[in-house]
Amino acid sequence: MNVTNLSHDPMSSWNDGELKRRILTFVQCVVDQNGPDYVPPAARIAVFDNDGTLWCEQPVYIQLAFALDRVKQLAGEHPEWRTTQPFQAVLEDDHEGLAATGMKGILALVAATHAGMTTEEFERIAREWFATGKHPRFNVLFTELAYQPMVELLSHLRSNEFKTFIVSGGGIEFMRVIAEQVYGIPPDQVIGSSGKMKYELRDGVPVLVRLPELDFFDDKEAKPVAIQKFIGQRPIAAFGNSDGDLQMPQWAAAGPGRRLMLLVDHTDAEREFDYRVSPLGRLEVALTEANERGWAVVSMKNDWKQVFAFEVGSR
Amino acid sequence: MNVTNLSHDPMSSWNDGELKRRILTFVQCVVDQNGPDYVPPAARIAVFDNDGTLWCEQPVYIQLAFALDRVKQLAGEHPEWRTTQPFQAVLEDDHEGLAATGMKGILALVAATHAGMTTEEFERIAREWFATGKHPRFNVLFTELAYQPMVELLSHLRSNEFKTFIVSGGGIEFMRVIAEQVYGIPPDQVIGSSGKMKYELRDGVPVLVRLPELDFFDDKEAKPVAIQKFIGQRPIAAFGNSDGDLQMPQWAAAGPGRRLMLLVDHTDAEREFDYRVSPLGRLEVALTEANERGWAVVSMKNDWKQVFAFEVGSR
Repeated sequence: MNVTNLSHDPMSSWNDGELKRRILTFVQCVVDQNGPDYVPPAARIAVFDNDGTLWCEQPVYIQLAFALDRVKQLAGEHPEWRTTQPFQAVLEDDHEGLAATGMKGILALVAATHAGMTTEEFERIAREWFATGKHPRFNVLFTELAYQPMVELLSHLRSNEFKTFIVSGGGIEFMRVIAEQVYGIPPDQVIGSSGKMKYELRDGVPVLVRLPELDFFDDKEAKPVAIQKFIGQRPIAAFGNSDGDLQMPQWAAAGPGRRLMLLVDHTDAEREFDYRVSPLGRLEVALTEANERGWAVVSMKNDWKQVFAFEVGSR
Repeated sequence: MNVTNLSHDPMSSWNDGELKRRILTFVQCVVDQNGPDYVPPAARIAVFDNDGTLWCEQPVYIQLAFALDRVKQLAGEHPEWRTTQPFQAVLEDDHEGLAATGMKGILALVAATHAGMTTEEFERIAREWFATGKHPRFNVLFTELAYQPMVELLSHLRSNEFKTFIVSGGGIEFMRVIAEQVYGIPPDQVIGSSGKMKYELRDGVPVLVRLPELDFFDDKEAKPVAIQKFIGQRPIAAFGNSDGDLQMPQWAAAGPGRRLMLLVDHTDAEREFDYRVSPLGRLEVALTEANERGWAVVSMKNDWKQVFAFEVGSR
């Protein structure tokens, strides 16, 4: 297949080359009814990690930025937060102090900002935040931080009758607020971490109340479990960017027939972030396995003509 | 709307009348772009209970029939079952003894027949059982026990760009084996009860092992929770048949705009089962609420021209 022959290039933000050809060829092969690699539409399942794979996760996860903003917004109602960790650290912009509270601190932040309201109230709060919150470096709405090449890839897969799913460690209801608008992915195809919920009638009106208790943490070994639980079929394509995603391509790769496993490697300090110098989104074990097994690895610097839609011009 | 004017009747197994007209009118209204009740396709979510709503659940749940058959198949490997409850009762066809073991007995049966194997092994076992197991009264494959009027309704909704979901107390992976074939519903639109799973590498090959531990029991108040978790949108139509389904139409009804809530009332001892004399599928609280709130109630005897596709002729 010669991609330059395409009258319309469905992946125009990708530099022409081996990697782009590999993706386009995979799609072409599985949809070719007369070819040996044909996969019927019902089995064309593709799964994508979100943070760092579909959108930017630096300098902090977008959902953490939301939680930090919410703590500041709610601080007036919680004077005790001025002297209680992890809230004190958040209010004082003390990043080291926050980091020192570890997973316990993160869960306390999530409980304070993601629970204690109904699902509808949470959706409204998240929607309002997305309408105004800006990324500290790029100064754009967080909804503009999707990687344009990945948005094109999602769209290309769906044009070829793939069903595209997000399978992320991020909060399922947080992502659902923007997944349709940003990625064209409907709520029921967004899978993520979740808290427990309680159904109750308030003056006869049913509500679902978000409880401050983790129900499912969708990371590492839990990702194939989530795929089986929510999708019920093994994907034929899996996309990730960090060691927390490793089990997704492992699981996808172990099925029969042609498959596409792909990792996004953050190599572009200029246009995005170079993860060689970042504590977030470590890609070591998964990169080794990708190289050993011949999975595709995207170098953002070399393979992407454009990273974000808001960039002016291209390299 | 006059349904007799339809050149093709999409619900030909329903007797013409107020109830059928109500369903067809609902669909016509929500798809009418110029009408006051228009709902965009992305929000056309319909949820269906399975046992007793989409297929026959008498004299025992189909999944229980599967579990009982599996105990008998596996008994040779478990001599201890001959003197251990609930297995002894199953092996001796002692229905009273089995019932006496209660929920504890059911969970022990599920653990023995639904866990301890990989997801792929379970799928194969269930698929083989569905290929041969027969219903004790109708003497047809269990996959032929779908209610023909409901299959037509599912199909009519999808023809009008609804997304149809099963939300059932039944096992999610058990139903997924047949949901596409029987109902035209893909695996990711089947929601149900589930056990915990564990991802592991066996000689480098990833498997998901089914553990003998309940993860989620999808009944009553848990159904709206499951809807929110798996679908992430409030349905505009909800279909059930028992008190265990009540919270689904409650949750659907509480949203804005036009909605359809419908309960199937088992009134036909001749063609199916009369639940007035059955311990299963009690419909009392939900029927009262349906009548008070004007939800639709199907009388199988009066509203369905045909119950099963395998019936010869019609009333």
